[in-house]
Amino acid sequence: MSSTPYYEHKIRVRYHECDRMGFLHHSVYAVFFEEARTEILRARGITYKEMEDEGIIMPVRSMKFLFKKAALYDDLLTIRVSILGEPKVRMVFKYEIYNENGDFLSDAETELFFVNKSTMRPMPLPGKFLNKMY
Amino acid sequence: MSSTPYYEHKIRVRYHECDRMGFLHHSVYAVFFEEARTEILRARGITYKEMEDEGIIMPVRSMKFLFKKAALYDDLLTIRVSILGEPKVRMVFKYEIYNENGDFLSDAETELFFVNKSTMRPMPLPGKFLNKMY
Amino acid sequence: MSSTPYYEHKIRVRYHECDRMGFLHHSVYAVFFEEARTEILRARGITYKEMEDEGIIMPVRSMKFLFKKAALYDDLLTIRVSILGEPKVRMVFKYEIYNENGDFLSDAETELFFVNKSTMRPMPLPGKFLNKMY
Amino acid sequence: MSSTPYYEHKIRVRYHECDRMGFLHHSVYAVFFEEARTEILRARGITYKEMEDEGIIMPVRSMKFLFKKAALYDDLLTIRVSILGEPKVRMVFKYEIYNENGDFLSDAETELFFVNKSTMRPMPLPGKFLNKMY
Repeated sequence: MSSTPYYEHKIRVRYHECDRMGFLHHSVYAVFFEEARTEILRARGITYKEMEDEGIIMPVRSMKFLFKKAALYDDLLTIRVSILGEPKVRMVFKYEIYNENGDFLSDAETELFFVNKSTMRPMPLPGKFLNKMY
Repeated sequence: MSSTPYYEHKIRVRYHECDRMGFLHHSVYAVFFEEARTEILRARGITYKEMEDEGIIMPVRSMKFLFKKAALYDDLLTIRVSILGEPKVRMVFKYEIYNENGDFLSDAETELFFVNKSTMRPMPLPGKFLNKMY
Repeated sequence: MSSTPYYEHKIRVRYHECDRMGFLHHSVYAVFFEEARTEILRARGITYKEMEDEGIIMPVRSMKFLFKKAALYDDLLTIRVSILGEPKVRMVFKYEIYNENGDFLSDAETELFFVNKSTMRPMPLPGKFLNKMY
Repeated sequence: MSSTPYYEHKIRVRYHECDRMGFLHHSVYAVFFEEARTEILRARGITYKEMEDEGIIMPVRSMKFLFKKAALYDDLLTIRVSILGEPKVRMVFKYEIYNENGDFLSDAETELFFVNKSTMRPMPLPGKFLNKMY
């Protein structure tokens, strides 16, 4: 396991991401989590773009979200992202969101698969990426 | 229970809703499901806009998604939406998505609460709306 | 010139497309116009997806928008889209948006280029597509 | 005129903001420019949220964009934003985007109005905000 169990990434809520209720729209959380998992990988020396350029794509298989408290326009959110278990053919990320007051807003999990872009079949993550991840 | 257990709503996948993989981006499903639940309510004589104008908002409390097969650009999707149980303070919608070939792509559930916009507290759905729903 | 100088396409404003002011967010107009130009082409027997599959992409070169009156949540908008001039290497679309009361809300123009996906260089639109367009 | 004629703001292109061509979708530029004008105001001591909380909204009246070169996934873009002229009832922002290689990608202008949220009528920007802007 990594010595840093989670990675913290900050995102400020954009104007258009909020709805008529004044809340961050629930569909945007998936976007924020995608950015957070990109950044935990970058912090470990992996860019998702490089993975795609080498023919590995990572479609989402499932996701679940719990919303406890709304995020608001211009909030500077902290997303704690961690990797659950060891990636083989699939990879599970866990997320927690906090606002600037430290209030817990939301948590979520997403499950992704490594897929060979040419064959569109699941594949194990190559060692060159796996070694950096842990 | 309604004589029609589910409502079918069609949505065509927009260009910008697809990503570099060519797939409908996973964050857009929440948007499609929101449109589908608006339309099942409209079919039963309720507009969500009217509910908001009367001071009732419906924030999402939780959601979960399973993605079996990707939706692609320009696909004309059919979303089957149904209401699980009887709404009191909360309301659960279930969704299934099919493409034009009849392939099952995805299913999901979202749980929403009725909230009084002035007090921001949960409230039961008023009878005038509840009566139309069943 | 086509006997129908413009094509009318209807789009209902989605919840998440509106902002804290309750207005359709200005960034979404580009999305609606993209849908409208896809539909005027479809009405003339051309699917943009087919063009892309044959190696022709249409990046946007420039666009300009005028906003006179806001579109609101759940509005069923009518977009009148027309093709200005005759497409050669570039193509100009004009759009006007009206709400259900017939109020004029906005107009816009977008200029796109036909580009060969392999070489990434501008190209004239092949005759098989051009012939259907007029 | 301010001693800093423009403000530079950096935004990394998100995965879902790119389309099937692999390009940053043209509709997202309006979102990036909105973020950039929020940040030039913040740098001058004004938060747009505070303006809204005091009853001043800023709908967009017009915008125009020129796209010279595509922005790509994961690009770290630099947006140079400046304020043209002196805001009275309306305010014009100019933007230029560069990628990490220093390539000029795009420029744009947006014109916004100050509007009283209660009356929905144009209003001059109050001195307490105007003084900070210059």
